[in-house]
Amino acid sequence: MNLMIEGRKAQDASTELAMLATEQKKEALLHIAKLLRESTEEILAANAKDVEKAIEKGVKDSLVDRLRLTEARIDAMAEGLEQITELEDPVGTVLAQWKRPNGLRIKKIRVPFGVIGIIYESRPNVTVDAFGLCFMSGNAVILKGGSDAITSNLALGAILRRGLADCGITEDAVYVVEATDRETTKQLMRLNRFVDVLIPRGSANLINTVLENSTIPVIETGTGNCHIYVDVKADLKKAIDIIINAKTQRMGVCNACESLVVHRDIAAKFLPMLAEALAPYSIDIRADEEARAVVGSFSEATEEDFGTEYLDRIISVKTVGSVEEAIAHINRYHTKHSDAIITKDCKAADLFLRAVDSACVYVNASTRFTDGFEFGFGAEIGISTQKLHARGPMGLAELTSYKYQVVGNGQVRG
Amino acid sequence: MNLMIEGRKAQDASTELAMLATEQKKEALLHIAKLLRESTEEILAANAKDVEKAIEKGVKDSLVDRLRLTEARIDAMAEGLEQITELEDPVGTVLAQWKRPNGLRIKKIRVPFGVIGIIYESRPNVTVDAFGLCFMSGNAVILKGGSDAITSNLALGAILRRGLADCGITEDAVYVVEATDRETTKQLMRLNRFVDVLIPRGSANLINTVLENSTIPVIETGTGNCHIYVDVKADLKKAIDIIINAKTQRMGVCNACESLVVHRDIAAKFLPMLAEALAPYSIDIRADEEARAVVGSFSEATEEDFGTEYLDRIISVKTVGSVEEAIAHINRYHTKHSDAIITKDCKAADLFLRAVDSACVYVNASTRFTDGFEFGFGAEIGISTQKLHARGPMGLAELTSYKYQVVGNGQVRG
Repeated sequence: MNLMIEGRKAQDASTELAMLATEQKKEALLHIAKLLRESTEEILAANAKDVEKAIEKGVKDSLVDRLRLTEARIDAMAEGLEQITELEDPVGTVLAQWKRPNGLRIKKIRVPFGVIGIIYESRPNVTVDAFGLCFMSGNAVILKGGSDAITSNLALGAILRRGLADCGITEDAVYVVEATDRETTKQLMRLNRFVDVLIPRGSANLINTVLENSTIPVIETGTGNCHIYVDVKADLKKAIDIIINAKTQRMGVCNACESLVVHRDIAAKFLPMLAEALAPYSIDIRADEEARAVVGSFSEATEEDFGTEYLDRIISVKTVGSVEEAIAHINRYHTKHSDAIITKDCKAADLFLRAVDSACVYVNASTRFTDGFEFGFGAEIGISTQKLHARGPMGLAELTSYKYQVVGNGQVRG
Repeated sequence: MNLMIEGRKAQDASTELAMLATEQKKEALLHIAKLLRESTEEILAANAKDVEKAIEKGVKDSLVDRLRLTEARIDAMAEGLEQITELEDPVGTVLAQWKRPNGLRIKKIRVPFGVIGIIYESRPNVTVDAFGLCFMSGNAVILKGGSDAITSNLALGAILRRGLADCGITEDAVYVVEATDRETTKQLMRLNRFVDVLIPRGSANLINTVLENSTIPVIETGTGNCHIYVDVKADLKKAIDIIINAKTQRMGVCNACESLVVHRDIAAKFLPMLAEALAPYSIDIRADEEARAVVGSFSEATEEDFGTEYLDRIISVKTVGSVEEAIAHINRYHTKHSDAIITKDCKAADLFLRAVDSACVYVNASTRFTDGFEFGFGAEIGISTQKLHARGPMGLAELTSYKYQVVGNGQVRG
C-alpha cells in the first residue's frame, strides 16, 4: 500500500488540529469516550477474531491475555480519554518573548509536533491511549500496531474517526495502518516528508529495528538497566526495602532494578541481609568475586551481566570502593534510564545526582517512580532514554515542539 | 580505525566536563584562543598542505578559498572563542522543581548532552567554532571534517587538546577523527553507545547521508525553501525591499528566499514592480500561468520548482486567491525553515503566524533574520529544520538536555 497519500492527509489534518481550541479538543475526547462505551459489542466482536487467530496460532497465554479486550478494558480506555481532558493543554504557551534592537519582536511559542507516528506491539488499548495524548497535544497520529491485533485496532480506529467526524473535526487526525507487512512498516519509517517524529513502543527488538531503519527523528523509549548503589553510609534497612520494591514489585518493566552496586566496607554486613531478603522471591543473584566471597550461594556475574536488562528474576551485584567508582561503573553499563543511591551522606548524594548520566537520578527512593503518573504529569506516552528533546517520563508537553513568531515593520538584514 | 575506543574516551571525558565550573570553562577557552594565535605559523604550515593538495586536484577556486586559512582567519577563530566566554552558561539551570504528595522532591535540571558528533565539510574554522560551543555547554565533541581539510583540522585539534591539557582539563573533550574514509564515517554514525547526538553541517547531500545511516539521534539543519507571501493588503514597496533583501543579500544561504506567493488581486500591480526590481540582479523568475499572463518575460514554473531550494539566481512565483490558499501552498512545499507574510492586515498576519508550520514565521520582515546572532543568542551551531528538540537557530542552550534529580527518604512505589 502507499502511505504517501495517508501521510499527506495526516499532515493536512495537523494544520487544522494545531489551531483547535482547548475546549473543542476536550469535547471531542469526551464524545469519543462515550462512543467507545456504546460500541462495546462492535469492539468485542472485532477483538474476538484476533483472539481466535492467536489461539489457533498457538500464541502463549500471557500474550493472548494482552490481546484480549473485555467490557472493563474498553471502559478503561474510555476513562483514559476522559482523564486526558483534565490535563492542561500545552499548545500556545509563550515560552519566551523579547524585542531586538532593530525593533523585531520575537515570540517563542509551544506548538504541536504536527504528525506523530507510533509503532507498537500487541495491546490494542495503545491505539486509543496514544490517539488521546496526540490529539490533546494538537497532533495528528499514524498508528502502526502489531499484526496480531489488527482487527481490533482497525475497529477502534474506525470509532475514533467516526467520533471526530461527529464533532466536525477532520477524521484524518488519526489513521490506523491497515497493512501489516514489513514493507509498509519500512515505508512509514521513511515518511520524513509527512511525519515529524516516530515513537516506537515495545520490545528492545522493535525499538532497534526502528532506530536502524527510520530516517524520521525517533524518540527512543524503554530499555532500563537501572542501578541501585548502596553506599558505605547507607541506611541498610531502607536499602533492602527499596531494592525489594525496585526489583520485585513488577519484574518486566523498564524502571525495575537490574543491577546493584555495593560499597565494599558494608558488603560483609549488607550482602547476607540482601540474600535473605530476596530469597522469598527466587531471585538469581549474580555477583562479582568479592561479593561471592561474602555470600557463597551467589552465582557468578560475567561482564555481560552488568550490561543486561533482565526483565526477569535475576539481579547483578558489583562491589566498589567509593562513590566515584560506583558512578564510573554505572555510567559505563547503564542505559541512562534511572539509577539510585542509598546514603545518608549529603556529599555522596550530591555527587551521585550530578555525575550519573541518567534521565532520572534518585537519592533514597525506588527507581520504580520513573513514570508520568508518579511524576505528576497525569499521563505518559513513554519514557525516553535519549537526550534529544525529551528525557525520562513523557507527558503532553513532551509531545510538542515550538516555533518562533517574528513581527516587524519592514526590517531587512544589513 | 576503531572509533569505539575514542567514543568511550569522549564519554568518560563528558562526565568530567559536565561538572566543570563556568569559570574553568571560560579560562580554558581564553587560554586556547591565545594558544591559537601563538600557533599561527604551525596552523598555516598544515593548512598549506591541504591547499596545495586541493590545487593539484584541480578543485574550484571558490572551494580552495573556503579551505585557505590566513592570519586574519586564525585570529577570527580565536576571537570566536573569546566571544563564547561572554555567553551565559546554560548548564545547571533549574528548569522546574516540585514536591510530590509522597514527599519526593523532583528537580528538572539543564545538563549537557554528553558527547556531540559533528560531521562537516571543507571550512577548517568549524573545527574551532564547534569545539568552542560544545565545550562551553559542557559537552565532549567528536569532529569529523572533510578529507580536503584533514591536515588543517588535525593541527587545530592538536592545539585544542594541548590547550585543555595546559588547564588541567581532559584533552578527550575534543577528538578530531583522523581517518577520512567512508567506513569510519559510517562507524561514527552508529556509535550510539557513546555519542548522544549527531549534527551534520554542510550540503543537503551530506545531511541526507547522515539521516539515512545514523542510528544516533540527528539534528537536521540547513535546507531552507523559504517563502514570502505578498498579501492583498501588503505595502508593496516594503514587499519589494524585503524580497530583494531576502533573495539577493546572500544567495547561497538557507534563510534566503526561494519562493514567492502573490495574491491574485494585486498581481497586476505588483508583478511588474517585482520584475523591474529584480532585473539588476539577473534573477530567473519562474512563475505559474497566471503570473506569466501579467509579465510575459517570466519563465515557466514546474511543480518541481515550488519545492526547490535553488541557492542560486532563481525564484519561483505562485499566484493564490487568499491567505488560506497561500498557507496551504507554503505548508505543502516549504522545508519548515522560515516563511514570511507581507501585509497590513492583522487578521491575515495572525492566521499566517499560527498556521504556517515553520521554525520561524515572519510578518513584514526578511527571512534572512533566521540566525543565532540576529536572534540575540550570541552564537549559532546551526539552524534546525526538524521539530524534535531544537527548532530554528541553535545557540548554547540548544546544545543541552535535562535530567530529573529526585530526592526521597526511603519512598517505595505502592
